[in-house]
Formats: sequence, C-alpha cells, structure tokens
Amino acid sequence: MTGYKQAILLREDLDMSKGKMIAQACHASLKAYRKADKQAVKEWEVSGEKKIVLKVDEQSLQEKRMDAEASGLTVSSVKDAGKTELKSGTETALAIGPDKEDSIDSVTGDLALIK
Amino acid sequence: MTGYKQAILLREDLDMSKGKMIAQACHASLKAYRKADKQAVKEWEVSGEKKIVLKVDEQSLQEKRMDAEASGLTVSSVKDAGKTELKSGTETALAIGPDKEDSIDSVTGDLALIK
Repeated sequence: MTGYKQAILLREDLDMSKGKMIAQACHASLKAYRKADKQAVKEWEVSGEKKIVLKVDEQSLQEKRMDAEASGLTVSSVKDAGKTELKSGTETALAIGPDKEDSIDSVTGDLALIK
Repeated sequence: MTGYKQAILLREDLDMSKGKMIAQACHASLKAYRKADKQAVKEWEVSGEKKIVLKVDEQSLQEKRMDAEASGLTVSSVKDAGKTELKSGTETALAIGPDKEDSIDSVTGDLALIK
C-alpha cells in the first residue's frame, strides 16, 4: 500500500531570504491543501501529513507543473505580490497534492531535496 | 482598520536543515489554519493571507505560546516525529492565527523576522 504526501517545489534560483522561502512554501502548501481531493486529504491527515520540500528553478517548476497536471494531480503555484524582495508576478513555489506517494514520486522523483 | 495575518514562529537554535525548517513551518501553519476562528480565516483569505516568519528559541517559543493563549489567540505547535534530524518530541515551530494583526503583534512584536 502506498502512503500519501504533499510535495512542495521551491525555487532556489531566486534571491529569496530563508524567511521569504518559508512563507512562499506555506502559501503553496495551504493553497494545494484546500484544492486537493478530500479523500486524499483525509488519508494524508491520518497518516501524519508527510511533506517533502524539493528544489526547482524556473524551468523545472514549469515542467513539473505540466507533468503533474497531465497525471491528474492537484497543483497550486504561488506568485509573489512583489511587495518586498521580488518582481511582482514571479512564480516562487508549487505544491502538488496531498496525493498518493507513488503518483507524486512519478512526477518529482528526479528532484533533489532542499537541504 | 487592522488587517489579518498568521505568525509562524520557528526555532533557529536547533540543527535543522533549511528543508526541514520549511516543512515544520508548513505543518504549523496548516494546523493553526484548521483550528482558527472561521471568520478570522475568511477575513485573512480575502486580504491576501499574510504570513510572517519569526525567529524563536526553545524558551521564547514557550513564552509566546503562553502569551498567545492568554490573549485568546489560536496556537498550534509542531513536535518532530524524530525520524530524521531531531530527537523525537522536539518542539520546532508554533503558528499563531490567522487573526487580527494588532492582536498578534501585541504578542510577537519583539521577535525578529527570519532572514
């Protein structure tokens, strides 16, 4: 039996502070959570709400969004409002799921964890 | 009129990787979101879901939790399951709200942003 998780893909090619990266990741995570399939959310909640944080750049973020959508996964991206560090509209993060681990891994399996 | 925000207090005195810190912050953010007053959540959502990420250590996390609870604010903390980097049960993050900015500021106003 496969477990459930949420993947949070975060751009590391932008000049974001750690605090900014954390806020963007939380925005994406919550946005995808609200949009995800309710049964998948329930399975994820009872199994400990696993989250993984993966490194992308502008191009791989777009590619992974298309791959995830083609696989029928819930995706939500975050664009920065541009009030502080970034140009308005810059896409900073993409969350996928919560959904089945193996479905998410088939899209994000080649990405590195953010250390 | 005051706005709405959520404060995420994150320990920087632990030896957590950036990815680990991000995941812990997202856990706390979502946990407090589900628990918060529904009207405050609604106001926060329509006003752009402001989140701030603040630096604490073990002692100030406990102090801020007590202060927030005494002010009637929603708080949710996260304990690490201890599967990877930390000792099981280590408290890593505390989210307050979403709630009125001035109520949250009265508790967290002396904390520094995570840079």
